[in-house]
Amino acid sequence: MRFDRVWFNARLATLAPAEDGLGIVERGAIAARDGRIAFAGAMEDLPSSWDAADRIDCAGRWITPGLVDCHTHLIFGGDRAEEFELRLKGASYEEIAQAGGGIVSTVRATRGASEDDLVTGALPRLDHLIAEGCTTVEVKSGYGLDLDTEARMLRAARRLAHERPVSITTTFLGAHAVPPEGSGDKDVYITRVCEEMMPVLVREGLVHAVDAFCERIAFSPEQTARVFAAAKALGLNIKLHADQLSNLHGAKLAAEYGALSADHLEHTDDEGAAAMAKSGAVAVLLPGAFYMLRETQAPPVAAFRRYGTRMALATDCNPGTSPLTSLLLAMNMGATLFRLTVEECLAGVTREAARALGRLPEIGTLERGKSCDLAIWNIERPAELVYRLGFNPLHARIWRGQ
Amino acid sequence: MRFDRVWFNARLATLAPAEDGLGIVERGAIAARDGRIAFAGAMEDLPSSWDAADRIDCAGRWITPGLVDCHTHLIFGGDRAEEFELRLKGASYEEIAQAGGGIVSTVRATRGASEDDLVTGALPRLDHLIAEGCTTVEVKSGYGLDLDTEARMLRAARRLAHERPVSITTTFLGAHAVPPEGSGDKDVYITRVCEEMMPVLVREGLVHAVDAFCERIAFSPEQTARVFAAAKALGLNIKLHADQLSNLHGAKLAAEYGALSADHLEHTDDEGAAAMAKSGAVAVLLPGAFYMLRETQAPPVAAFRRYGTRMALATDCNPGTSPLTSLLLAMNMGATLFRLTVEECLAGVTREAARALGRLPEIGTLERGKSCDLAIWNIERPAELVYRLGFNPLHARIWRGQ
Ligand SMILES: [Zn+2]
Ligand SMILES: [Zn+2]
Repeated sequence: MRFDRVWFNARLATLAPAEDGLGIVERGAIAARDGRIAFAGAMEDLPSSWDAADRIDCAGRWITPGLVDCHTHLIFGGDRAEEFELRLKGASYEEIAQAGGGIVSTVRATRGASEDDLVTGALPRLDHLIAEGCTTVEVKSGYGLDLDTEARMLRAARRLAHERPVSITTTFLGAHAVPPEGSGDKDVYITRVCEEMMPVLVREGLVHAVDAFCERIAFSPEQTARVFAAAKALGLNIKLHADQLSNLHGAKLAAEYGALSADHLEHTDDEGAAAMAKSGAVAVLLPGAFYMLRETQAPPVAAFRRYGTRMALATDCNPGTSPLTSLLLAMNMGATLFRLTVEECLAGVTREAARALGRLPEIGTLERGKSCDLAIWNIERPAELVYRLGFNPLHARIWRGQ
Repeated sequence: MRFDRVWFNARLATLAPAEDGLGIVERGAIAARDGRIAFAGAMEDLPSSWDAADRIDCAGRWITPGLVDCHTHLIFGGDRAEEFELRLKGASYEEIAQAGGGIVSTVRATRGASEDDLVTGALPRLDHLIAEGCTTVEVKSGYGLDLDTEARMLRAARRLAHERPVSITTTFLGAHAVPPEGSGDKDVYITRVCEEMMPVLVREGLVHAVDAFCERIAFSPEQTARVFAAAKALGLNIKLHADQLSNLHGAKLAAEYGALSADHLEHTDDEGAAAMAKSGAVAVLLPGAFYMLRETQAPPVAAFRRYGTRMALATDCNPGTSPLTSLLLAMNMGATLFRLTVEECLAGVTREAARALGRLPEIGTLERGKSCDLAIWNIERPAELVYRLGFNPLHARIWRGQ
């Protein structure tokens, strides 16, 4: 059998759902053909007649699926370093707002940025994710809050996939905050999101999924439900920023609408966890924001385990509450702050993250037929990827077989 | 005037103690001659007749002093990833000990490692520090607990400076733990540390300073005082792991003995903070261990500010409680977890870290006559170095002018 490339003498963490735990293969090999995995398994099970243009001896290194960051706000204008600095000096909320801080400052900077500016600003962040073996990144809009800027953000996000060897999936988050101009009437704005923005963006082919921020400081469950209904009517997948600061039963709402995921979930209760398990919605945990905001209530990991709710981990990379561009660090925080196990952390940035994007059939595990997206690591055991802090043992990264 | 190299069009954070805050120079230049800083200041103050073999246009980038990691245990055998994994699975202290975990496992692995093994194991950790602009690293012994292994650790640490362009300073931490063999009598072991180990290691030229771990689970204040007295008699600088888990008044003890620094200090009281301010001992804060151990009592930063105690930040890189090899992340943790300001964080990994090593006359600020150790950054403002998480904006690193 002829392959394009074969990686052999590798230890695999396949994350294949049919296997126990990480799906470990001690003396393993991966073969790629036309950018897809043509073989993943024990070396001895390779067809005896195999041949390949490229044969790569991995010398015992570990191979995992390429990492998937399933929740980011990678595209934005400006930064919030100055606000961070002021906060540490004890500035009050009002003083920061007066100094032009808060999400409004990001909205202003994003509206003032060209598509090129947005791409240029995001590339160093994307490059850091890539440098740690990330092969798929979800990117949300939500700092435009008007049709033009939301479209520009989504186009910029799509362009990242032309600038770098990476898969990008885009999520429309018009319902992120109420725009600073206008009446401030949330229902009026939600109507605009559903009737004016969403259909146009979908028609332009810019939207893989629709997200909303359901929280007292953002949108109510009823307003969120309107967004979901509109998205469903257009045949789009949905996601939700839910139960981060208080329990508005966002998890349950997301489950009722068949969302791919509900994200954050610090205040989700048993009923929400059970509903998500039943509907198959993934719980996307975002420890970077938890850490930066110095939250004390961790998401209900025990309940998720009890009910069988799937858990993913992501960076939530954003300028305000999680300026994090490392899935390795997100894993350490998932373990240290949320007490996820090593297996849960690794599944959380591969298989479960792919599931949270609705892309598990194509990515997220080392299985035949999937995109050949690999991360090859200089480690002795997978736990090292979670245990270490501020360290990058990536040896090589493969995207679509290259 | 002729220089070897000049960096111009730079923004400087000189950290010079005579200046306010970060000692910022907006249109600045640095000149190097014979590995030292021959000029640091405003471009317009460069001597009009200057010339240099090498002229580097920094295009507005920021230059800070090369970073100084003033507290690490970079040299050790084995790792503790498996123990970390077991802990997350809920293993008890006894189960971990039975599985060969804890500091004893590191002592065993370190004793079984050759000097080459120790160097090879430490280099990837050192390389990560270097990749973030670190130019001076302190390395402690303390996983040998016998003369041979302590000496081998210190020799391995010194060899790092031959393997990489970096300054290494070595600290003898024989009084880290009681060795697993023998009677377990702490006083007997301290006698060995003071009378058998310390003089030999000093004679071999392996020791810049002496450290001890003063804690109920380690050594008492009286035993610590014996170590300090022996070190003083040999003319050595001293440091102390103090008040991390409980308040044994280690900070005050360190101050009384004129220690360069006392480190950790979560449980230090006002009296300790005041004594340190008076003696000039630097408070070395180690947020990585605080984070990994999920401690809740932060060091008394307000008291340190009130009394004028100097504060440094370090990684405490060690396999058990802080597998951290990023000073950038240590700064973010210092800000996020301990509420240090941006200025305190940056001073903490430059000027104050140099002071904590007794090397402020040579390194730690951008001032004429000091070693030309620089970190050049792709940032718009210094706050970005503290604010971001899992990101490395280093553009270039200069050690001794190169
Ligand atoms: Zn988010
Ligand atoms: Zn230490």
